[in-house]
Amino acid sequence: MQLGMIGLGRMGADMVRRLTKGGQQCIAYDVQSAAVDRLKQEGVAGAASLQDLVAQLEKPRAVWLMVPAAVVDATLEKLVPLLEPGDVVIDGGNSYYHDDIRRANELGARQLHYVDVGTSGGVAGRERGYCLMIGGEPEVVKRLEPIFAALAPGAAAAPPTPGRTATSGSTADQGFLHCGPQGAGHFVKMVHNGIEYGIMAAYAEGLNILRHADAGKHAREADAETSPLRRPELYQYDLNLAEVTEVWRRGSVIGSWLLDLIAGSLVSDADLQNYTGRVSDSGEGRWTVAAAIDEGVPTPVLSAALFARFSSRGEADFANRVLSAMRHDFGGHVEKTAEPGSAPKG
Amino acid sequence: MQLGMIGLGRMGADMVRRLTKGGQQCIAYDVQSAAVDRLKQEGVAGAASLQDLVAQLEKPRAVWLMVPAAVVDATLEKLVPLLEPGDVVIDGGNSYYHDDIRRANELGARQLHYVDVGTSGGVAGRERGYCLMIGGEPEVVKRLEPIFAALAPGAAAAPPTPGRTATSGSTADQGFLHCGPQGAGHFVKMVHNGIEYGIMAAYAEGLNILRHADAGKHAREADAETSPLRRPELYQYDLNLAEVTEVWRRGSVIGSWLLDLIAGSLVSDADLQNYTGRVSDSGEGRWTVAAAIDEGVPTPVLSAALFARFSSRGEADFANRVLSAMRHDFGGHVEKTAEPGSAPKG
Amino acid sequence: MQLGMIGLGRMGADMVRRLTKGGQQCIAYDVQSAAVDRLKQEGVAGAASLQDLVAQLEKPRAVWLMVPAAVVDATLEKLVPLLEPGDVVIDGGNSYYHDDIRRANELGARQLHYVDVGTSGGVAGRERGYCLMIGGEPEVVKRLEPIFAALAPGAAAAPPTPGRTATSGSTADQGFLHCGPQGAGHFVKMVHNGIEYGIMAAYAEGLNILRHADAGKHAREADAETSPLRRPELYQYDLNLAEVTEVWRRGSVIGSWLLDLIAGSLVSDADLQNYTGRVSDSGEGRWTVAAAIDEGVPTPVLSAALFARFSSRGEADFANRVLSAMRHDFGGHVEKTAEPGSAPKG
Amino acid sequence: MQLGMIGLGRMGADMVRRLTKGGQQCIAYDVQSAAVDRLKQEGVAGAASLQDLVAQLEKPRAVWLMVPAAVVDATLEKLVPLLEPGDVVIDGGNSYYHDDIRRANELGARQLHYVDVGTSGGVAGRERGYCLMIGGEPEVVKRLEPIFAALAPGAAAAPPTPGRTATSGSTADQGFLHCGPQGAGHFVKMVHNGIEYGIMAAYAEGLNILRHADAGKHAREADAETSPLRRPELYQYDLNLAEVTEVWRRGSVIGSWLLDLIAGSLVSDADLQNYTGRVSDSGEGRWTVAAAIDEGVPTPVLSAALFARFSSRGEADFANRVLSAMRHDFGGHVEKTAEPGSAPKG
Repeated sequence: MQLGMIGLGRMGADMVRRLTKGGQQCIAYDVQSAAVDRLKQEGVAGAASLQDLVAQLEKPRAVWLMVPAAVVDATLEKLVPLLEPGDVVIDGGNSYYHDDIRRANELGARQLHYVDVGTSGGVAGRERGYCLMIGGEPEVVKRLEPIFAALAPGAAAAPPTPGRTATSGSTADQGFLHCGPQGAGHFVKMVHNGIEYGIMAAYAEGLNILRHADAGKHAREADAETSPLRRPELYQYDLNLAEVTEVWRRGSVIGSWLLDLIAGSLVSDADLQNYTGRVSDSGEGRWTVAAAIDEGVPTPVLSAALFARFSSRGEADFANRVLSAMRHDFGGHVEKTAEPGSAPKG
Repeated sequence: MQLGMIGLGRMGADMVRRLTKGGQQCIAYDVQSAAVDRLKQEGVAGAASLQDLVAQLEKPRAVWLMVPAAVVDATLEKLVPLLEPGDVVIDGGNSYYHDDIRRANELGARQLHYVDVGTSGGVAGRERGYCLMIGGEPEVVKRLEPIFAALAPGAAAAPPTPGRTATSGSTADQGFLHCGPQGAGHFVKMVHNGIEYGIMAAYAEGLNILRHADAGKHAREADAETSPLRRPELYQYDLNLAEVTEVWRRGSVIGSWLLDLIAGSLVSDADLQNYTGRVSDSGEGRWTVAAAIDEGVPTPVLSAALFARFSSRGEADFANRVLSAMRHDFGGHVEKTAEPGSAPKG
Repeated sequence: MQLGMIGLGRMGADMVRRLTKGGQQCIAYDVQSAAVDRLKQEGVAGAASLQDLVAQLEKPRAVWLMVPAAVVDATLEKLVPLLEPGDVVIDGGNSYYHDDIRRANELGARQLHYVDVGTSGGVAGRERGYCLMIGGEPEVVKRLEPIFAALAPGAAAAPPTPGRTATSGSTADQGFLHCGPQGAGHFVKMVHNGIEYGIMAAYAEGLNILRHADAGKHAREADAETSPLRRPELYQYDLNLAEVTEVWRRGSVIGSWLLDLIAGSLVSDADLQNYTGRVSDSGEGRWTVAAAIDEGVPTPVLSAALFARFSSRGEADFANRVLSAMRHDFGGHVEKTAEPGSAPKG
Repeated sequence: MQLGMIGLGRMGADMVRRLTKGGQQCIAYDVQSAAVDRLKQEGVAGAASLQDLVAQLEKPRAVWLMVPAAVVDATLEKLVPLLEPGDVVIDGGNSYYHDDIRRANELGARQLHYVDVGTSGGVAGRERGYCLMIGGEPEVVKRLEPIFAALAPGAAAAPPTPGRTATSGSTADQGFLHCGPQGAGHFVKMVHNGIEYGIMAAYAEGLNILRHADAGKHAREADAETSPLRRPELYQYDLNLAEVTEVWRRGSVIGSWLLDLIAGSLVSDADLQNYTGRVSDSGEGRWTVAAAIDEGVPTPVLSAALFARFSSRGEADFANRVLSAMRHDFGGHVEKTAEPGSAPKG
């Protein structure tokens, strides 16, 4: 079926390519005409403006927004007046589901349909397919199924889950799912990303322990400010993390796609010197913890993962200075500038 | 090659089966003769006693222990006097690597070799193969490679990692790895399990948030002891967790073997009523955090996951009573017996 | 000066008593006339209705609300129409500062003034005085100083802070502080309570460790599901927590008012059997973490304290069942119903 | 009574002064003769060597070690051969209680007594007195009571705890306590310090939230890497932390000695620019969490506080680089070098 795609960044352009390859007809638009031109050179139809995009689409229109969460509302402000009752707007980006609920109401008042799609898969999605978590009105979501099916990885992407009956009629087995009314798609995607933070942190902490398994080889100072390593003979291992992550990829309980990626990173950059360790967070992790708090659900792991990212960016600095001030005032402790033994391993 | 297996529980018996199928020759022994008999009926050679086992093995002998960590030393006490210089003892269970280092020294004094093997794969290992993390002397580990190769999943169990050269000669690609000297195998396995705790907790917390996405449908009391849900309209979703976990299996960033298992569990038991939520920990998670503390490596996520298990078993109860006592004493707060709204969802 | 007090619960009634003793003139009102009658018997002027209360107050009126956060808006709905430009409404309860900002705007549109006061001190406040964190317009807050001064503990309640100059003119030394514009009072109080959660949890966890210092005396099972205590000889202490908390009250770094309370609780109820350990949270701890997330400030400790309360109420149950299901599926682990060794100490 | 003091650093020298002022007779010794000379100038008896110290002491001797934990054993190696059956060695430093148990056995074999004393109070202890947590044989501890009483703050240091009977005979009311057999003193002190870490972190995190209450005044980037602040109007407060901590000192629930210290620090250094935020840990916090893990007691707050210190010293760096590598590999995310909005507040 036909789909207008607004936003041809990393994700949007690749989705157009996958849709096209999957037999769907896309009209592509971006505020940067160069992005449109690139896809046109690949044989995709392009639009010169929102007006042009809307004009090229058959009614009822289906328009997919793949723009940063921060500019969705600005885009809708321009797009919505061009649409007609029955048209559908799909937000496939990383919007906060609170916004979905508001927008669904606003568009609904104009007899426009709003569908939110949480999209996971990242840069690999073009080849692997995208996992789609969808919120919206049932009949509207149903109408868009050809689009979702073309974007999703398909049933063959994972072995069947024992016990699931082939006749269940669920599309989850193909990699897309209608989760519930508007907002449900981004709600599920939000929690998905919250889980992602936790899993990533679990690997990262574990690898950090492995990396410092040679701690006993490095002398640590013995003064009142430093806790000596009591049994250095227990920490004499030089572990090869590229090899360790590779072996875990086969047969272990912690095999995963994220582990595949880490193993790949470590092949060429064993010390990960390409990175400084300043870790961004793009919102979903925060919203996940906020939702947990609203619901009264304990999330000690997901929040610890989130806060570790904040700390990686220096956001704990003032708190740490408060600690140093207290230590000075009650114990006369003077801050140390560096601690031998930790420095060499980063 | 030939291997003596001591301990024919869940793991040990299946490993004998996989080894046998892989062309290796096992002599099986267990303190419970029924366990030996079962394997004998499957065509495996059995031993009636440790003496018998040792007598049947060609020199230099290779004996694999697959017994609970708590009885390894007692088993060694009986086994070691029967062995001769050059023989190898392999501990394939979940021993603490501290014990490996000690035992390697003790056995080394008798010119016996000690190899520690961290084994991951669980009940699925018989079919999938076992991920093996190995510590020991290089030439001894090398000698045992046919055994490890038969137990491991093999290279086909995962797609090749981009960038790894076929000529690296590493066995990690086959699913087993010589990690370092004695103790290194169980050290890596220990951290593997620590990571496992963190990943499991990430999924569990996230699913708990999804499960309570209908919190706005349940009235919550408005009194000084209860924080009302400010925007109930944001929590009106009835999410189907079996479907959500199924869709995540295809194309999402958080796809993993553990996710496959959860999706399977939820198919037949959507509310997980088969479980009460009392979660054991068998040691590795504790040791992982203790190692992190020794090394000075922060593990907020892995420790939060560990402590959540402790709390699931009521180990926070006294601390919670301390909190209630304080709240009573400064604020006159009286403990509530239950909170409507949370009860129905468990 | 004159003040109308609405809400004569635990806190409100005691505040009227302290104000009266401090020479201020209160008119007391509550929806439950019995509460008004009690104060009338103590010589305080009472009002039979909101109309009556407003009628008895001199202009510009000052009305203090001391009602549960959940009924502030309903109370304002009835009160506001009775007031006149220049009157002041003070919310001294535990309102969310978001509501303060909204209400300040709503009342401002009617030329009414809104002041938010975070009040700490609990049931001891009547004698010790209340710590007041105030948000509002400077001249309005200034006008109310006699009220705040009468409620606050006064300078003698704590020794002077070295370095503070007597001429600073700050009222913080007396126990009340104008923190900033509307909402600032409750913002500071919110964070105060968030800190309180963290401090309480620190004591509670520490006391729980002390309580289990005899863990080595209790045999623990040795099976694959249970991690044995490796060195029971290190956990042979029977510590008297009432004595320990008492000794900490003198000279230690962790002396505090909360510690004083715990020491008192343990005198008569050494095992805290008066409590079950179901710990409520009344909102501020949640809002504190939510604010931290908005600001990007890491709060691993404050959030861990919050989530421990959620868990104490069974809110982690489903997550724990997910963990048990995974353990069963990958490892064949069966849930244990109880673990000897932990049971006897609660 | 008479006491030999070995170790005249910050703590040891002040303890000698307090003991002397309290009517006890000290013989002071330190490997640095200048430290001995300083006390001699104040009228305290000094020793030129360990032999000299032992010679000057009446039998049975009482020798107090106040040296860094890392040199206690080396000191004992020299001291013990000089002592005679019945003599007492007191370790008043921050030894690990595991060492106490070992040393008590070693000294006991020579009929020497060993007493461990956890000492809290820091640099203020000389004036305020020291809180003493004591482990040892009852009659030996009893014999040393005059020393403990002179060092402790005394009953007047805190108001009586309601419900405690004057006739209890406990010394806890005076600020020292015989907690149990050898090791019990340092065990209780260890947990005391673990609690201290948690309390300090609670204040530090809370103050960090208050410091960033103006986050809405700083523009934050709107790109796919950055989560925008949704409601900047809620974060417009410029809070004066010196004033806030001062007001909390009177009447609030979170009043404490640590708060007194913070309030003092902020008077002269509002931004705490005297510190960089590199926070040491001297062992007790680590040991506390390790003990909790041994006992199976959940300590999410105490461990989070410990790990925040590790992170303040850059120990999370490799873990953070792992996170950045994963984000790059699945999402094409490039690390940002800095985030406007957070920078100016430190």
